[in-house]
This record gives sequence, structure tokens and C-alpha cells, in this order.
Amino acid sequence: MKIINQSHEIQAIYGGLESIETAGRTCYQSQDKITKTSSEKFTKMLRDKGHHAMLEFGEIIVKFITNRGVTHELVRHRHCSFAQESTRYVKYSDNMEFILPVWLEKMTKDKKVREAKHIWYLSMIKAEEDYKQLLDLGQTPQQAREVLPNSLKTEIIVKANFREWRHILTLRTSKASHPQMRALMLPLLKELQEKIPILFDDINID
Amino acid sequence: MKIINQSHEIQAIYGGLESIETAGRTCYQSQDKITKTSSEKFTKMLRDKGHHAMLEFGEIIVKFITNRGVTHELVRHRHCSFAQESTRYVKYSDNMEFILPVWLEKMTKDKKVREAKHIWYLSMIKAEEDYKQLLDLGQTPQQAREVLPNSLKTEIIVKANFREWRHILTLRTSKASHPQMRALMLPLLKELQEKIPILFDDINID
Amino acid sequence: MKIINQSHEIQAIYGGLESIETAGRTCYQSQDKITKTSSEKFTKMLRDKGHHAMLEFGEIIVKFITNRGVTHELVRHRHCSFAQESTRYVKYSDNMEFILPVWLEKMTKDKKVREAKHIWYLSMIKAEEDYKQLLDLGQTPQQAREVLPNSLKTEIIVKANFREWRHILTLRTSKASHPQMRALMLPLLKELQEKIPILFDDINID
Amino acid sequence: MKIINQSHEIQAIYGGLESIETAGRTCYQSQDKITKTSSEKFTKMLRDKGHHAMLEFGEIIVKFITNRGVTHELVRHRHCSFAQESTRYVKYSDNMEFILPVWLEKMTKDKKVREAKHIWYLSMIKAEEDYKQLLDLGQTPQQAREVLPNSLKTEIIVKANFREWRHILTLRTSKASHPQMRALMLPLLKELQEKIPILFDDINID
Repeated sequence: MKIINQSHEIQAIYGGLESIETAGRTCYQSQDKITKTSSEKFTKMLRDKGHHAMLEFGEIIVKFITNRGVTHELVRHRHCSFAQESTRYVKYSDNMEFILPVWLEKMTKDKKVREAKHIWYLSMIKAEEDYKQLLDLGQTPQQAREVLPNSLKTEIIVKANFREWRHILTLRTSKASHPQMRALMLPLLKELQEKIPILFDDINID
Repeated sequence: MKIINQSHEIQAIYGGLESIETAGRTCYQSQDKITKTSSEKFTKMLRDKGHHAMLEFGEIIVKFITNRGVTHELVRHRHCSFAQESTRYVKYSDNMEFILPVWLEKMTKDKKVREAKHIWYLSMIKAEEDYKQLLDLGQTPQQAREVLPNSLKTEIIVKANFREWRHILTLRTSKASHPQMRALMLPLLKELQEKIPILFDDINID
Repeated sequence: MKIINQSHEIQAIYGGLESIETAGRTCYQSQDKITKTSSEKFTKMLRDKGHHAMLEFGEIIVKFITNRGVTHELVRHRHCSFAQESTRYVKYSDNMEFILPVWLEKMTKDKKVREAKHIWYLSMIKAEEDYKQLLDLGQTPQQAREVLPNSLKTEIIVKANFREWRHILTLRTSKASHPQMRALMLPLLKELQEKIPILFDDINID
Repeated sequence: MKIINQSHEIQAIYGGLESIETAGRTCYQSQDKITKTSSEKFTKMLRDKGHHAMLEFGEIIVKFITNRGVTHELVRHRHCSFAQESTRYVKYSDNMEFILPVWLEKMTKDKKVREAKHIWYLSMIKAEEDYKQLLDLGQTPQQAREVLPNSLKTEIIVKANFREWRHILTLRTSKASHPQMRALMLPLLKELQEKIPILFDDINID
């Protein structure tokens, strides 16, 4: 068993301001106005005017390592493509991992929080034991998964276009979102705001 | 704690062969051929010819009671609307329920299966205990949910059009699907095959 | 040949505030709070809080009679189901109709507008003639359609859920939309604001 | 006025067999089996087994030059992103173009076909004249477009993932599709079958 922290990794960014400009200028047939430096201003104009269909002309693929409570929410976004570690086809033998909840990450003197962390930890150990016992009794992985908790580590690759990422990141970094989800998405938003500011820097973090 | 079996309930069927015929005949402007009995034959023709866009003109709402392992798969269908019991906002005090896995439902003399059932059962008891202890220590429901297992009972209302239900039922009653999912969908398919045969009776069960 | 005005007709409303409340309360497991009069307040709360996924639990089917310039825009909405009169399969013999553009509807003394209307009218007559000549020469309807103009009348049945209609009506009644589209959608919005005020009365008309 | 033939141009291919393999192996957690040459076999296996969600991990952007009859059909595909030349914002002054229908392309001695071609040609000339007269009378481009025919040239950029292109190309190269659409898609399918055979060579052309 291993306790790890959740994380993200941007695997690919396909297209960018140039592909958005090419698409956008097709609508107006103003392709002759494209210069080496025109895409930034043009994209900002589209963004601010709300002509967001053009922001669909680029894609970002992100790999997340998080828990299955978070992914059960995440896969509700209908405009994404997903590839997720399967609890049906993966057999966890000596490699079961759990995601330490973000609110239990910090060292604290608060007795109740320390106790909660302890209970969570024992609960993970027990779940792993139960799972392995079920395997030993002939249950298949897809049957034994019944006892596995939300904190189980899962990998998920998410592909979405820029427009959809703007929607996801706005929603999932708001204070109303689950703390584990929010903690996953905040660093991604910050990274994207640095990488492609025009596409993401108007998203305000609560 | 309560151990229950999964189930489904058809909450509403909106539209039907008539709404499909009205839509389909708009394409051909043959509305004058509508008679009291023409919709069945017309719909069968559309179905067999593959003009399935017209099968989108009716909806079925189904309420499922199942486990969260199944719903994590189910919500991947992108053309549905979902309303699901929230582990963020529901606080399980004295009403926690778990879904007995279908492969453990039958009485058996097989020692290994009996033992597996026992382990599963103890695992549920332990998960509930851990959850309640976390609540007692001041963790919120959305934090305490971390220890809850896939077998946790969940309610989900699924709305989809006829075409999408055909897709879901074909996929989820096949032998390749998870046994808990398949056991949930088979009785629904059978019920729909009786209720609206033209729309579902060409789906073969493995 | 016939010159007609565009129009809409609500064919069906499936579900309503009750189906929204049933769905919404499943999330919170507060079904016991449903009373005969609770759905209106509950739906308003969902609407104002932005929990719009629940507004997907009802559908409206509308039949529009409009022109093919408008429908080319309309079918871009990806969350709808469409059934449209086909220029491939319908053969216009003596029943060709055109939609009088809304900005040419009113009587006017403005010479330029009167002249524009006249040119438009002659253009329709010529298009019909060309189409019929092509048919006479053995071209099929799907070939002869090449000469038919945007003003050609078309029937389209559009089915979408409440949430999507809110999106469509907000977008298509704004001043930025095409005048023919806007003139089509404004009376529909007004009718829906009267029929189901809770779902539509927060949409402001420019 | 200019009469041109329709055409396509692949603008970008994002991702490929490697991105599909990375996604697919995440499900099985078999990333350690990736070699320099493994992606082809792995992708073929996914394709033949029907695990097509993984084929969503790559995108193709194609620019089509075709007529507005074809695009009215094309934009019905809901899983694409589109950027299309706008008849609202583009003002056709001296640059109006029409797409010669594919069935009129070939030289022929068939009198009826020659006559049909002549009528089509005159119809285009007349439509352009009417459009320009309307502009001269103060009508805006989005008003004057009413008289423009299906054969009007339009540019459209279509972005879709591999899975969706497989669907589009299967449907739109079948004999049941409109001849102008089919003639547009056949060369694209052939080009893709050469470029990425594993993804497209199981699509049979009627």
C-alpha cells in the first residue's frame, strides 16, 4: 500500500492562438489580415465578444492522478474524452495506492483532525486487506472492487478543447466545488494561465 | 445499516410512435399519410433503415437504485441527463444502505463464495463505522465520504431519448459488461421490449 | 408559388416543474419535502443558484416554419433533435413556398424598400422556374435544389430540454442575431414565458 | 462571378497512434508495454474490439470548399467544431463564387444534361445580379443573402476526433448520401486511408 498526493500533468496542447485565428477569420473571410503577431489580439477579441465556438479549435490533454470520488464528478463533463484506469481490468496485487485527502495533508496539532487522519488511514489498510482476501477466495478484480473506497487512486486522461477547459476550470476551481477537486484544478488553471494567458487569464479564482 | 438489492423503475415515457411518425414524415412532407394505425409500421421502417435520428423524438426517464461502481460507468453516457444522490450533500446518519452484489445474492454451499460474502458484509459494516467516526470528529459528509466503498447504494435518475436508450441497453446488457450493470439493465430491457416492442425488440440479448 | 410568413407551433411540453423537482430532490434525498405546491419555489431556487442540470428533466417540441437560411444556423445547436423537410426527398411541383423576409413585411412608402421587395419577389419566381425546368430535363429533386434560394420555406421540428431552450432563446432573441431568426424566436419566448414563467421569465429581451 | 469545383484540405492532424496507445493503456495500466513499434498493433486491436472511445484521442482539422446545400447537412454532426464563412458578415461584391455541381462537371453530348447545365449557369448569374441590386438598394449583406442559392460557395473548417471522422466518412461516402457530399468526402477518405491506414482502412467504400 502506498499513500500519495494527487497531481496533474499536461500531456499535450494541440493548436493554439494560430488555429483559433485561422478558424475565426474563415467566418469573416479576412484571412488576408493574418500577420505573425495578429493571433493574440484576434483571440482576445473573440474571447471578450463571446464568439467562443472558435475556442474549440485547440485541445489540451491532461493526465490526472486523483481519487475515484473526484473522477465520478469529473466524467460528468460531456464534451470531454476520457481514458480511465479500470477497476474491472486492473488487478491490484501489491500496488494499491490511495490519495491522501487534501484537508488531511498538513501537519496539525488539532487532535480531532489527527484522529480523523488515523481513522482514514486504517480504513484504507482494511479496504486493501478485504480486497486481497476476496481475490484469494476466487473473486475477480471486477467483483472484489466492491469494497474499494472513494480514496482509491485512479489515473484519468482528459482531453477537451479550450472552450470546454474554460468551462471546467471555472466551475471546478470555484469555492462551491469539492475541496479535493478544487485542489486538483487550481494548479492546472495557474499553469494554463501562464502557458496560454489569452485563453485563461480572465477566469477569476474565488 | 441495510443491505438491499438493486432495482429500476420507469418514471415516465414521453412521446412514442406517434411523435416519431410526426417527426419522420416532416422530412418527407408526407404528413397526409398519417392514420390511426400507421405509426407502428412507419417507425419499424425507420428503425430498420437506420434513420435513427427520428427515434430521438421520445424520452424515457428511469430511476435506478444501484451502487456507485455502476453509476461511475453509467454517467459516461454523454447523451443523457442525470440526477444523482450526492455524497457531498447527503449525510448518512442511520440510513446507510449497501447494494448486495448480484453474484453473492444466491444461497450457495460453495464455501469460498460464502466466505467472500461474509468478508464483503464485514467490510460494509466497517466502512459505515469509519464514516460515522469521521463525522463525529467534525469531518463534513463530503470529507467523510472518502472511506465509502463502491457498494454504497445510490439513486440516479436517467433521462435519455429512445435512440440513446437503444445504445445504452445494447451495450450494457452484453456479456462484456460488468455483471452488476448487466443485471440492472436486463430487466429494464425486457420491460421496454414489452411496453414499446417496435423500439426495442431488435436488441438481442447475448 | 406561395409567399408566406414564418411561424412556430409548440407541439408538446414533456415534464415540467414536477419532474424537475423529483430529479433535484433525488440529489439531496429530500423527496419527503415534496408537496402539491413545492415545485415552483424549488425550481426557482435551482434556476437562480445555477443548478441547471436539473432543468434538463423536461422537453419542449416546437415546429417552425421558416426559411433555410435560418435553419442552417439553427441546426448548429448540438443538444437538440431535429427533423427537417428534406430538399433531397421532397419534390416541389406545384407547392413551392417562400418565406417573406420580416423586414419586407410591412407596407412602406420607402421607394428603395419597395424596390427591394420587388426584386426579391422576382428572384423567387425565377428560382422556381429554374427548378422546374431542371426537373423537366431529368434532374432529380436533390440535383435541382441547387438553384433554390435561402428564402425557400422549410419545416423543422426541434426538440430540446428546458435548459437548452433557455440557451437558444437567450442567444437567438438578442439583437446580435439575424433579424429573421430573432423574429421567429421572440414570439416563442413570449409564449413560453406565459406558459412556464419560472423557466423563462428571467430571460431579458434586449 | 466565378465557377469553381469543390475541394478539401487537411489542415492538421493532432495526435495519432501514440496518443491512442497512451490513453488505451491507461485503462489497463499497461504503459510499461509501450515500445517504439507497439502503437499500430494496439490501435488495431482497440479498433477491431470496438473500444472506440480511445480513438477520440486524436483530431483532424479539414477545410472544405463546397456549397451551402452540403454544409447544411454537414453541420448536423454534433461532435464536431465548425467555423464557416458567414453570409451575414461577408459582403460579396466582386468575388461571388459558385460550386459547379459534380454531376454537371463532365463534358457530355447528352442534350438534356447540357441544357440543365446551361440553366444552372444562368440561374447563378441571375442570383448574383439580384444580390447586388439588393445591396445597391441599401439592403445589408445578411438581408440580401435571401436570394442566394444552395450552390453558393462556402468555406468551412471542420474539426473532429478520429472516432467521429470514422462515423462521418462511413455515412457520407455511402451511396445513400447526396452526390455532392459523397464526391467531397471520397477523396478525403482515400487520403486518410493512406496517411493513417489503421484508423480508416476498415471503412469500405460502397
